[in-house]
Amino acid sequence: MTVAVATLTQRTHCYPLRIYIEDTDAAGLVYYANYLKFTERARSEMLRDCHVPHAQMIRDNRCTFVVRQCRVDYLKPGVLEDQLVVETFVQQLKGMTLTLQQHVKRNDEELVRMEVKLACINDQHKPTRIPVAIGDALRAHGFLAI
Amino acid sequence: MTVAVATLTQRTHCYPLRIYIEDTDAAGLVYYANYLKFTERARSEMLRDCHVPHAQMIRDNRCTFVVRQCRVDYLKPGVLEDQLVVETFVQQLKGMTLTLQQHVKRNDEELVRMEVKLACINDQHKPTRIPVAIGDALRAHGFLAI
Amino acid sequence: MTVAVATLTQRTHCYPLRIYIEDTDAAGLVYYANYLKFTERARSEMLRDCHVPHAQMIRDNRCTFVVRQCRVDYLKPGVLEDQLVVETFVQQLKGMTLTLQQHVKRNDEELVRMEVKLACINDQHKPTRIPVAIGDALRAHGFLAI
Amino acid sequence: MTVAVATLTQRTHCYPLRIYIEDTDAAGLVYYANYLKFTERARSEMLRDCHVPHAQMIRDNRCTFVVRQCRVDYLKPGVLEDQLVVETFVQQLKGMTLTLQQHVKRNDEELVRMEVKLACINDQHKPTRIPVAIGDALRAHGFLAI
Repeated sequence: MTVAVATLTQRTHCYPLRIYIEDTDAAGLVYYANYLKFTERARSEMLRDCHVPHAQMIRDNRCTFVVRQCRVDYLKPGVLEDQLVVETFVQQLKGMTLTLQQHVKRNDEELVRMEVKLACINDQHKPTRIPVAIGDALRAHGFLAI
Repeated sequence: MTVAVATLTQRTHCYPLRIYIEDTDAAGLVYYANYLKFTERARSEMLRDCHVPHAQMIRDNRCTFVVRQCRVDYLKPGVLEDQLVVETFVQQLKGMTLTLQQHVKRNDEELVRMEVKLACINDQHKPTRIPVAIGDALRAHGFLAI
Repeated sequence: MTVAVATLTQRTHCYPLRIYIEDTDAAGLVYYANYLKFTERARSEMLRDCHVPHAQMIRDNRCTFVVRQCRVDYLKPGVLEDQLVVETFVQQLKGMTLTLQQHVKRNDEELVRMEVKLACINDQHKPTRIPVAIGDALRAHGFLAI
Repeated sequence: MTVAVATLTQRTHCYPLRIYIEDTDAAGLVYYANYLKFTERARSEMLRDCHVPHAQMIRDNRCTFVVRQCRVDYLKPGVLEDQLVVETFVQQLKGMTLTLQQHVKRNDEELVRMEVKLACINDQHKPTRIPVAIGDALRAHGFLAI
């Protein structure tokens, strides 16, 4: 069964993206804040690949994820027209917090490494448990080991 | 009386801003889409100067402005650390539409010229008449001739 | 021959994109300036599809495109998670100016319509003729009728 | 003497800013990546207050700062029309690295806390010692204790 197999080795989600002029700055490099946009696009696509897009999560569970903390290491600069990949790996899902490792790569070169802690909040902006359906969906698609 | 005097010569609103790295691109110039951010900041400040901030407009009148059309002429490029001014001039307020002329200047040099038509929409996203209070506030502060 | 056939009916370039949280604003809609990012991504991809990426154009011809004018009509709002397409159609290539029509669509609905005039500038930031190679490449790939 | 007095108590740099629509997202809050723009604006203004704007640093010393690492804690959300202040405190200047603490506040409430490590790179994009003039300027204006 797909589900059972998937949990044996946890998958890394891969999201490809291109660097456009909007992403660069006067130094000719990708502006540092923009990597946080790229990693969020990747997180959105990982949820979508698990059939839990943001809009549905908000509608069905009246909750959403917010970033509580991130730590970003900028190792090498990205430049115009780079074809990059954001690799996302679920480190921990526990109570109200989802912790991810995200690596932005150009082929085998790692440009940026990010650890991000997401908290689940309800429609009153209060912290709330991550819906069981989210964990189940991540597990079913192999992005979370049992 | 201030109100009466103000209507004799219509005022131009001036909003100063600095160009930061986030505003530039790999060509070393201000990225073209960012001027639309600058002009919206200026529009927000003009409303605030009339004591009608967006949040209050939404709360009291359950409506907000959206951009329906803009025409932008890029005359000269802005660069890092420029100190610019956005000049905003109300061209027409009529029914559901507010038309503004906005000029982005570096001292006497005009960098960008924009004509923007704003429509008022209600909380159902339907077009609605601009609240009388908005016109009154613009007139009272001299930004709209009678 | 491909070239001859391509010129019979001029092609429209199609660039797909997804709306992420970064693209939206507090009104829950796509922020109006961001459509100018989407259309530039589409223009970059059209050039790349013609095998003339920006970086090569700058390197080989010591010139680049800048936006001289744009006129944007906002017809309907985009929202989070929309899957959009930017359709780009070359209207005219003449001397130093390339004029394009760009339509941002959600399925058959047109959200935003933009006419944009690009000027070619050299590495001294002076207007210069668009390199013959650009016109040839657009023609060879069917994006420009003879 | 100003210099001597300034070194007795190290100053915190304060940079005020307003939240505009461009800064918010569909959740109605300030988008998380945008705080990195705000803190960079504040760093630029701190250098400018020391009479070392970026453009001059690049021109005179053929070097610039890049972000090597940042750690960001998101404590409370900012919303549309907030008037915020970015407080910047120099933690360490040593060799090729400048470490800063930056706090984004709404009155007395701390919204975001960031520690950022900047590296100095030359015009070949290689790490290089921070010019003595930068340290001297920070000290002269009280932003760095001896």
